[in-house]
Amino acid sequence: MAKSRFEYVKQFERENFLLPQTHIVIRVDGKGFHKFADHYRFEKPNDRRALTVMNRTAHTMLRQFPDIVLAYGDSDEYSFLMRRDCELFERREMKLSSTFSSHMAVNYVLQWNRKFPDRPITDERIPTFDARVVTYPNAQTVRDYFSWRQVDCHINNLYNTAFWSLVQKCGMSTAEAEKALKGTLSSDKNEILFTRCGINYNNEPEVFKKGTVLVREYAEWKEPEAELTDRQKQRLLKLRRKATISELHVDIIKDDFWTERPWLLR
Amino acid sequence: MAKSRFEYVKQFERENFLLPQTHIVIRVDGKGFHKFADHYRFEKPNDRRALTVMNRTAHTMLRQFPDIVLAYGDSDEYSFLMRRDCELFERREMKLSSTFSSHMAVNYVLQWNRKFPDRPITDERIPTFDARVVTYPNAQTVRDYFSWRQVDCHINNLYNTAFWSLVQKCGMSTAEAEKALKGTLSSDKNEILFTRCGINYNNEPEVFKKGTVLVREYAEWKEPEAELTDRQKQRLLKLRRKATISELHVDIIKDDFWTERPWLLR
Amino acid sequence: MAKSRFEYVKQFERENFLLPQTHIVIRVDGKGFHKFADHYRFEKPNDRRALTVMNRTAHTMLRQFPDIVLAYGDSDEYSFLMRRDCELFERREMKLSSTFSSHMAVNYVLQWNRKFPDRPITDERIPTFDARVVTYPNAQTVRDYFSWRQVDCHINNLYNTAFWSLVQKCGMSTAEAEKALKGTLSSDKNEILFTRCGINYNNEPEVFKKGTVLVREYAEWKEPEAELTDRQKQRLLKLRRKATISELHVDIIKDDFWTERPWLLR
Amino acid sequence: MAKSRFEYVKQFERENFLLPQTHIVIRVDGKGFHKFADHYRFEKPNDRRALTVMNRTAHTMLRQFPDIVLAYGDSDEYSFLMRRDCELFERREMKLSSTFSSHMAVNYVLQWNRKFPDRPITDERIPTFDARVVTYPNAQTVRDYFSWRQVDCHINNLYNTAFWSLVQKCGMSTAEAEKALKGTLSSDKNEILFTRCGINYNNEPEVFKKGTVLVREYAEWKEPEAELTDRQKQRLLKLRRKATISELHVDIIKDDFWTERPWLLR
Repeated sequence: MAKSRFEYVKQFERENFLLPQTHIVIRVDGKGFHKFADHYRFEKPNDRRALTVMNRTAHTMLRQFPDIVLAYGDSDEYSFLMRRDCELFERREMKLSSTFSSHMAVNYVLQWNRKFPDRPITDERIPTFDARVVTYPNAQTVRDYFSWRQVDCHINNLYNTAFWSLVQKCGMSTAEAEKALKGTLSSDKNEILFTRCGINYNNEPEVFKKGTVLVREYAEWKEPEAELTDRQKQRLLKLRRKATISELHVDIIKDDFWTERPWLLR
Repeated sequence: MAKSRFEYVKQFERENFLLPQTHIVIRVDGKGFHKFADHYRFEKPNDRRALTVMNRTAHTMLRQFPDIVLAYGDSDEYSFLMRRDCELFERREMKLSSTFSSHMAVNYVLQWNRKFPDRPITDERIPTFDARVVTYPNAQTVRDYFSWRQVDCHINNLYNTAFWSLVQKCGMSTAEAEKALKGTLSSDKNEILFTRCGINYNNEPEVFKKGTVLVREYAEWKEPEAELTDRQKQRLLKLRRKATISELHVDIIKDDFWTERPWLLR
Repeated sequence: MAKSRFEYVKQFERENFLLPQTHIVIRVDGKGFHKFADHYRFEKPNDRRALTVMNRTAHTMLRQFPDIVLAYGDSDEYSFLMRRDCELFERREMKLSSTFSSHMAVNYVLQWNRKFPDRPITDERIPTFDARVVTYPNAQTVRDYFSWRQVDCHINNLYNTAFWSLVQKCGMSTAEAEKALKGTLSSDKNEILFTRCGINYNNEPEVFKKGTVLVREYAEWKEPEAELTDRQKQRLLKLRRKATISELHVDIIKDDFWTERPWLLR
Repeated sequence: MAKSRFEYVKQFERENFLLPQTHIVIRVDGKGFHKFADHYRFEKPNDRRALTVMNRTAHTMLRQFPDIVLAYGDSDEYSFLMRRDCELFERREMKLSSTFSSHMAVNYVLQWNRKFPDRPITDERIPTFDARVVTYPNAQTVRDYFSWRQVDCHINNLYNTAFWSLVQKCGMSTAEAEKALKGTLSSDKNEILFTRCGINYNNEPEVFKKGTVLVREYAEWKEPEAELTDRQKQRLLKLRRKATISELHVDIIKDDFWTERPWLLR
């Protein structure tokens, strides 16, 4: 088609092509989910149905993007690890981040409306996400990234469990509960939960304590050849699409999870 | 809260803070809207109801983001111009792009379901958007950007109108219509439309030919002081929030549109 | 020539193409010039011959790079303003910065050895520069940049003049002089200089107080057409190469300097 | 010191902090060295003395920057590999590139004037370098980078040797020699050299065929602990400063060179 004299404005566009052979992690994060949770009356400290919506949403993402090998999430965030050779959108940063945030949000709305037909999403308060793309150069840094997120889940959940137990079981005001927990260590919070609320934190559900792991599983894994023909690439893509997706609530800080799945960080 | 030994992985995050005092344009673009249009049975060449969904979606964006001063869109894309002093998300590129694409998509779903209660969005085919952030250093380049988009709208709409008229009115196959239009100039297409389909392109609806402009209007505009107190900033923000938003289908290539609205490019 | 299977490593190279139509400023800065000044026994607070070496070096830069329209420097730094349409090295950031620092350093060595034949540069202590490239989107920010540098020159020179006068004329130790000046305002330093050292700062040489401006001058300036033929571009390049370069020690914060030279910021 | 109202212009400065834990390679490249070689009457195809100047210059770089673990060069270019944990200038791209190009150029001038006292560098034609910084995420890509440069050295040297032999020994014009070599493979060039010029390329000096490797050597290498105290870091820095620097003209494509020196890519 004809080009106009205005075409030159495209020269102002900038692309950041992410460094090849690095591991891409995309973290989507709910925007203003405190208010969202209030508006749609989430249970405290954890709303099981809302968590299910998040996990199903992430599950849909793995179906829509075969390059995702692993996802980890808790609360209103999810981190997606792409396979190292990922060439999606030529590894363009803005395209990856904006596409992921957009898919995440729409999938969330659809999953929500299915799970909460009595409380459908309305204009007044919509769920949206931002997305951050980060590259990690090697396996150790990827593992440390996911350890960071799982430790964060643990710290937040322990605090929230203690906080809401003091409010709901001991009749404290939120201000009193906040004061009671200020400056406490993890061991203190465990102690407070046990002695004041009769709760053994160890017995809390794993999905709350560990968060949720979604991982593409291969029954038989064979390291692919370094140089693949196009037909072999197609076959691998098909394998990825068909792979089972496990939903787990397990420790991903220790080695076991990773050594059992060599395809994650090869 | 306690910090874990894994915190160091944050050092791998990168931010692109957009150059201050440049004009930010964010263009959202429908992903795979050809298939989306087929799936939800859009009328050809233009589906008025689907266009209305897009325009209402963009209108909602102007309500949600007071920093948007102008939006222009046609088909499945929309460009948003932020006021030059915009400090939203500290002008972080990824945050802006991922937030806009996410809001756009969710708003679209809600508007769609309101407009098409008979054909609600389902998992099988979802509307998503990517978003690209571009900075322009001065008024001329901003105007040329929007001229580029409006010329593009015209070129596409003339082609599509001619193509689908040949198919729908003259009974051509799509292959025949494509062949008939190959290599033709604008004047040729006008001629073909008139002689073969009895259509005077000039009489086509402006919303198809010009696209849609959404602009924040101020009855009385006064250039603000260079240095504003926080109270003055708050007052301006309130003014922006309350400003009328016009929906127009007019020429934005010529000077008039811009000289009548000095607040757009100050 | 034949390509090897290792060529793919070029894909890891990244380029930052500076935004078109912004004003490029390149600031070169001496590396470790305190030690350099000690090693080559600079006079304090200002060494006229060393300053002459810097200024001649910068003058050579304007001869070597016709795209430089203005340079401002003092002490061991110089800032070069490129004409707004500059396309040197396709506006690639690293190429611009590394080329400027390299030229600056070699030119400095040659100028130094000519000015100080008795104290030629040796391996023991070499003069080197780093270079930083910054883009400014409009005339005001460019002017504020150069104002910033000239204010900085003034602040540093007033301090250094006061400090070394107290040491050299009043016999203070450097520690005593530092203490005497701690927390003083500009007016205090002027007063100290006058009452204790008999020096009227206003009578100090302009080259020390204002720094040095190198500017390409045009006797008759005519705004060029927006669209230039290649022949016209060649003619303009020739004009730039032949233009006189003035060396001034004047105020570049006020308007006069700039309004008299409309070609600097057009 | 007092801050002026112009300080805000610093906000326009941008930094690219290179991704941690990636291998940094800095390649400096002579600017316009064809003309430089003509001006200073280099011998063709290789000028031994000029090569010596380059190699001594690079050697000085390894002395000035203890973070360089390896350098490889030929003709007018040199590539420097930094140790993976390098924190020089906080890994700021522009600072690294501009400092390296500046040091390279000044060192070259000093080495040149020592080696060629009869032909000192003058204003008419100065040696300058640009510098490009690239990050590689793993050992394989670093090795492939250096293989790429050594293959390039071989290809260029074989061509140049054949070309200048045809001119100097067979009395061809440069145009005739160019034509004779057009489209030839390596094997053809070897054949031409042997049959027409009586030269066995295999017997050419290794420094021409392989280029030059400068490598910091450790008699006893022990992998350092993951977590180092400041004192241990100081000790390692001292070791790096004192390490012998070997100058080699060997194959760096095969494994031997790298497996013998585990400290290069750990």
